[in-house]
Amino acid sequence: MTFSAVDHAMMAQALRLAEQGLYTTTPNPRVGCVVVRDGEVVGEGWHIAAGTPHAEVHALRMAGELARGATAYVTLEPCSHYGRTPPCAKGLIEAGVGRVVAAMQDPYHEVAGRGLDMLRAAGIEVAVGLLEAEARRLNKGFLSRAERGRPWVTLKAAASLDGKTALLNGASQWITGPDARRDVHRLRARSCAILTGSGTVLADDPQLTVREVFTPRQPRRVVVDSRLQTSPGARIYRDGETILATAVADAARHQPYLEQGVTVWVLGDTAGRVDLAALLARLAQEGVGELMVEAGAGLNGALLQAGLVDEIMLYLAPTLLGDAAQGLFGWPVLESLAGKRNVVVRDLRMVGQDVRLELAIPSC
Amino acid sequence: MTFSAVDHAMMAQALRLAEQGLYTTTPNPRVGCVVVRDGEVVGEGWHIAAGTPHAEVHALRMAGELARGATAYVTLEPCSHYGRTPPCAKGLIEAGVGRVVAAMQDPYHEVAGRGLDMLRAAGIEVAVGLLEAEARRLNKGFLSRAERGRPWVTLKAAASLDGKTALLNGASQWITGPDARRDVHRLRARSCAILTGSGTVLADDPQLTVREVFTPRQPRRVVVDSRLQTSPGARIYRDGETILATAVADAARHQPYLEQGVTVWVLGDTAGRVDLAALLARLAQEGVGELMVEAGAGLNGALLQAGLVDEIMLYLAPTLLGDAAQGLFGWPVLESLAGKRNVVVRDLRMVGQDVRLELAIPSC
Repeated sequence: MTFSAVDHAMMAQALRLAEQGLYTTTPNPRVGCVVVRDGEVVGEGWHIAAGTPHAEVHALRMAGELARGATAYVTLEPCSHYGRTPPCAKGLIEAGVGRVVAAMQDPYHEVAGRGLDMLRAAGIEVAVGLLEAEARRLNKGFLSRAERGRPWVTLKAAASLDGKTALLNGASQWITGPDARRDVHRLRARSCAILTGSGTVLADDPQLTVREVFTPRQPRRVVVDSRLQTSPGARIYRDGETILATAVADAARHQPYLEQGVTVWVLGDTAGRVDLAALLARLAQEGVGELMVEAGAGLNGALLQAGLVDEIMLYLAPTLLGDAAQGLFGWPVLESLAGKRNVVVRDLRMVGQDVRLELAIPSC
Repeated sequence: MTFSAVDHAMMAQALRLAEQGLYTTTPNPRVGCVVVRDGEVVGEGWHIAAGTPHAEVHALRMAGELARGATAYVTLEPCSHYGRTPPCAKGLIEAGVGRVVAAMQDPYHEVAGRGLDMLRAAGIEVAVGLLEAEARRLNKGFLSRAERGRPWVTLKAAASLDGKTALLNGASQWITGPDARRDVHRLRARSCAILTGSGTVLADDPQLTVREVFTPRQPRRVVVDSRLQTSPGARIYRDGETILATAVADAARHQPYLEQGVTVWVLGDTAGRVDLAALLARLAQEGVGELMVEAGAGLNGALLQAGLVDEIMLYLAPTLLGDAAQGLFGWPVLESLAGKRNVVVRDLRMVGQDVRLELAIPSC
């Protein structure tokens, strides 16, 4: 399949439009659409929020009669099923477009190629795979949920340049600067949920809400507290939706949390700890596509060891705390370097006075 | 003092020439000289090695009669004393230059403004301070020795992204990649000496020589071994000049090292450890301007705690070793964040697959 320079430019434009939905479309994917006739854009649109029209509907409405014989560029295969809106493939056929270019097929089981088949059956020329990597990155959470049955997991960690998160006595406030904090809030805003552990709740009593950037919705918060050690009065259990994952099955002990409006999930493994893989599967079922982890060395280490982390956003503050301080990733003593976890540096930059590294974790 | 665009361009050229001596001039400074007449370069030169002509001599020879009435740009004040060569200030006067622009005054006690005074007394127009910061950076070792009586200390450290240098069992080979290793050899090549500790010699038996880049001279090596725990047969004591700093005064115990050709310095403090400040002072006296530290957490931490480190070159490999591994900087448990050591990120880049951070340590 070859694509022209115009094809590339138009799909890039559709991707930019799709990005407008970064903070609002979940659990739906971010999708953009551009309708082009004789080299001119005659319609464009993007999906804004679940329950509202898809990108194609906006773009076709704008194009009106000009859509006839035009090319439609979409960042994801047009849907083929009746959900909260009628199928977009049907809309494109009825509008009379002559060609549809999709960045990628939709892996969602109710679509999965059927949208493209409908278009082809109607005699429309169909091309797939233009800027697919970019389209996948934009919907990494949606795709992970559809393809792997778990959210895309981004672990955020902040430390000194020598890898320390706090002093031995726990002192840690304000290691990174205001720019890094704002950057973290931006990451939270695009996430469906924020995961933390009982240790962090006990030590820092964080809210884990989005406060430093505008957002139309707050991510859900998830606390892993195997033995119910956190206080039901902790700030994370107030204002907004919080899920408490525990290994304690005793309903009486859930009561104080339930009274705070917290949702309690019992997901213990045979060792009496929360089964992290089961928790992620449940979160995906409940619509969580992008999950951000903001936890301590214990939960960070457990998730990494279980192969459940996709990327790490590591903020390093320009200071040194020395070896006698708390580290980033807790796991058992390694006997050989073969046990190390390799990562790939995807991006490296200064954020204010701090260093930010975007690390991808190759799947094993 | 204002300088023209031509002045800036010519001094920048003189600095580039001076840099040609990066690996060869010590213990002398790196110096470049450009002679300009009617906007044209008529002479240029740089100091190549101690005992050979200074930069001004080369440039004036090249200019010949054209030096008369010309402007000479020099990256350091011309010397005023008879050393291994006659004073350059005298040479400039005899050549008949009309104006001398120097990037900075020479703090060396035998010059210290007297070179500029000689020029002024001869009726030559003198201007000082153009691109001074750049000129200082080029000769940071020479200047530190002259101004502070100790070398400029660059600590090199390599670790995983979570700040670990080795597993608990000591396994550490090849944490960083070949590009970072070559970069370290480049740093070694510009250093007058490499400092390490007994722990590193015992664990890794390193050579600490320059092998991966060309160099006309090998830096001296310095081992801090307070209790003489290293083996006289260690590789660092072979081939080349090595200084052993110890707190052991017993001459009989020095004998096996002396037999290897090692120089032994007894520099114990009251606690029976090597007095690091005294060691640095002695190294400066012996002509060491730029000192590179390649040691373990103990010596690194002691130097940092003593305020004896000027910058850190930190190489972070794209891997995670986990908390149960060895750290970078050993010092006692901090009770408050006020005890942290702040640094400034001067440069951030990828070197092959590794991240390199150049960190400046603000003087206390």
